[in-house]
Amino acid sequence: MKSAALLLLLLTTLWCPSSAQQCSFQDLVRLGSDALLKSLASAVLEKATLSCTSTSSSGSYANCPSGYLAVSCSCGNACVSWDIQSEKTCHFQCANQDWTSACCCMIGNK
Amino acid sequence: MKSAALLLLLLTTLWCPSSAQQCSFQDLVRLGSDALLKSLASAVLEKATLSCTSTSSSGSYANCPSGYLAVSCSCGNACVSWDIQSEKTCHFQCANQDWTSACCCMIGNK
Amino acid sequence: MKSAALLLLLLTTLWCPSSAQQCSFQDLVRLGSDALLKSLASAVLEKATLSCTSTSSSGSYANCPSGYLAVSCSCGNACVSWDIQSEKTCHFQCANQDWTSACCCMIGNK
Repeated sequence: MKSAALLLLLLTTLWCPSSAQQCSFQDLVRLGSDALLKSLASAVLEKATLSCTSTSSSGSYANCPSGYLAVSCSCGNACVSWDIQSEKTCHFQCANQDWTSACCCMIGNK
Repeated sequence: MKSAALLLLLLTTLWCPSSAQQCSFQDLVRLGSDALLKSLASAVLEKATLSCTSTSSSGSYANCPSGYLAVSCSCGNACVSWDIQSEKTCHFQCANQDWTSACCCMIGNK
Repeated sequence: MKSAALLLLLLTTLWCPSSAQQCSFQDLVRLGSDALLKSLASAVLEKATLSCTSTSSSGSYANCPSGYLAVSCSCGNACVSWDIQSEKTCHFQCANQDWTSACCCMIGNK
């Protein structure tokens, strides 16, 4: 599966110049650009991965590392009211938080 | 790095028709369809981004915008029991919630 | 839009061998490998999707299905202090949890 997309892509490329009378644009479309795109997308997306990590700080704020987005927040004291600021900072709205933790994610490359 | 995948792809395409005796299918495979796919995937995935936003509503429910999925929920009153309904609605299970907020994410294109 | 990237890719491939005097490597670069890559990336990423699901277990732990990452945690008793272990297990730090739920996400293919 991993190399299916490329084999299809390369075969199309090779096949066309050597048989120009058959290789009209319509032929290629008929061969299925949708199938080719689907196959290529599948091969590329197999290499995509969701990458998540957690950070903790004392107090009411926790920042995600560069490139990551905050997707959820946890804390040490009884507080359920939090918000995410500037896409990457967890903030708890109650006073006297001892610690705050942020769950941070990004799209990575396997 | 950004154009490495395409340079490789275009070089392969250009090189082959002009030296047909060398450009067998096996040669191409030997040249490394894996490397080409990896390079192409890397270039495509550099353009992928995780995009997250928050929404708030009064009451016990908060909906994500179209295309987004709910990934975590926050609320105004002391309630830690929540669930996500139909992939995009945050719901707090305690009575008398004053507000509910949903953290919503999707895969975007830089 | 879906087939725009492939049409562009295939047109480039077809156009070049049939007019070799015009089709230098520099021409192709000038034609815009950036535009081609952007178009291809856009077509591939249209097929990418964030896929999330929830799991629940009794006690203080909840595991995500294989391939998924935990991005947030919910629970049945008043506890706001949780952490994610080994990227895929929700853990609540208070004693006597009746149930724990994990929100789990991965990158999928439409």
